[in-house]
Amino acid sequence: MRIVGIRRNGGPVEVASLSPDGAEVTVLASLERFWADAKGFVSREPAGESVPAREVAFVPPVLPEARVICIGLNYLKHVAEGSFAGEGVPPHPTLFARWTRSLTVDGAPVPVPSDEEGLDWEGEVVAYVGAPLVDAGPDEALAAVVGYSAFNDITARRAQKLTSQWILGKNGDNSGPLGPMVPAAEVGDLRDGLRVRTRVNGEVVQDGRTDEMVYTVGDTLALISRTFTLRPGDLLATGTPSGVGYARTPPWLLHPGDVVEVEVERVGTVRNPIVGNDARVRGA
Amino acid sequence: MRIVGIRRNGGPVEVASLSPDGAEVTVLASLERFWADAKGFVSREPAGESVPAREVAFVPPVLPEARVICIGLNYLKHVAEGSFAGEGVPPHPTLFARWTRSLTVDGAPVPVPSDEEGLDWEGEVVAYVGAPLVDAGPDEALAAVVGYSAFNDITARRAQKLTSQWILGKNGDNSGPLGPMVPAAEVGDLRDGLRVRTRVNGEVVQDGRTDEMVYTVGDTLALISRTFTLRPGDLLATGTPSGVGYARTPPWLLHPGDVVEVEVERVGTVRNPIVGNDARVRGA
Repeated sequence: MRIVGIRRNGGPVEVASLSPDGAEVTVLASLERFWADAKGFVSREPAGESVPAREVAFVPPVLPEARVICIGLNYLKHVAEGSFAGEGVPPHPTLFARWTRSLTVDGAPVPVPSDEEGLDWEGEVVAYVGAPLVDAGPDEALAAVVGYSAFNDITARRAQKLTSQWILGKNGDNSGPLGPMVPAAEVGDLRDGLRVRTRVNGEVVQDGRTDEMVYTVGDTLALISRTFTLRPGDLLATGTPSGVGYARTPPWLLHPGDVVEVEVERVGTVRNPIVGNDARVRGA
Repeated sequence: MRIVGIRRNGGPVEVASLSPDGAEVTVLASLERFWADAKGFVSREPAGESVPAREVAFVPPVLPEARVICIGLNYLKHVAEGSFAGEGVPPHPTLFARWTRSLTVDGAPVPVPSDEEGLDWEGEVVAYVGAPLVDAGPDEALAAVVGYSAFNDITARRAQKLTSQWILGKNGDNSGPLGPMVPAAEVGDLRDGLRVRTRVNGEVVQDGRTDEMVYTVGDTLALISRTFTLRPGDLLATGTPSGVGYARTPPWLLHPGDVVEVEVERVGTVRNPIVGNDARVRGA
């Protein structure tokens, strides 16, 4: 099952299942009802109305108040290539924040902000939390994961590195494209080593496996839950493998006209065109 | 005018004006309608239904998707007292993130998470953005501010300092109490030097003035708007003066039973009791 967010005629966000050929969506529930029983909805056959995909607008199936918690430096070879290499592998998962206003969907254009020379790719897998977690252990935390998406943590490197804290460069408009969510039961365990590949204009630029992660989904969610209570709908972006653009010699960044694509084995693909800053100005 | 969020009988969030004695609220609009024309709503006399305050639940008047952008290290004496002192004043505002799920209101209990010895206070002023901002200049950005609140950026220091990125320790449950929003026209300019005081069990622990800020509201919002588009309802927490607890000798942290209060001249007060982690476990 591929789970997406939709709007019909500018109405509220609903959660739907996308048909295998992508031509049709079957409505599951309103966004709020879906996240009140996400485990239930992904385990049953979709029973709602079916609508041609061309008649709906796609949006992330994400609650506006959801926390998008991101792990930096979670693949050893990515730690080694970046500007934190001298500090070695951090002793805990390095967590940073995206707001849901930075998220978007497959196909949406991603603008390069005014002061950036380009944007950098970071292909990842995102896990969706389906149950509250307070002081959870790793097994309870992993069992609460209801699904996964391919994700591109597109980064404005100049803004990211302006100060010690990264969040400015991690929250550009449309900079977080999410593919459809696939139920956890269909994906299995990321520790099996799912292949994560990023392509720019068709050329493979990242090719990692999820069993290279330093901090697992269960361990990381368990750690977080000892400080704040995870809620249904919260997201965990699990970090990117090696091969990002800024760490190359010479650096390679995304420019308007480029197309960037993240493909995660068993989970799917998210592909987005890069556009200029004028898209921001026009959209305001 | 003091603007608050309310729920009536568990219904949707509405924005209301609180009477001078706090006994009554007058409804202005639904949360979405308010933020679609915040400047208009704060400049007109409240015209909606009046309800006794005891019949409503108070919540932050904040959109669930709002970005809560926080400035670290924005008062010189606070820079000098903390663990970043050796690096001097940062050349740009150090921005970190809260999610709206961490926000709460005056009077709400704030739990000390499991692994913390206590919590630290950070009295601040928050500015509310009332208009979209793309590549704005400082004057346009400041003119978009629709109001201000007293804010306590309550911090779990152990979690904040676990890695290079601060957000885990900045998003504890109920760790961001916001006082009522006061329209910008009534507050004037923070550069006038409004007094910001924090008290613990009645004892003054922070006493600063907003004209000590290194980065102004207009400059900071302008900088942010060159990377991502600010939207109505986004918040900017402007940083804390010196006097936080962890930097004292010996350190002084908040424990269950303590009461912490932030008072901002012309803006008001937010006061909260500290409770134990068992409140998180019970609330799950």
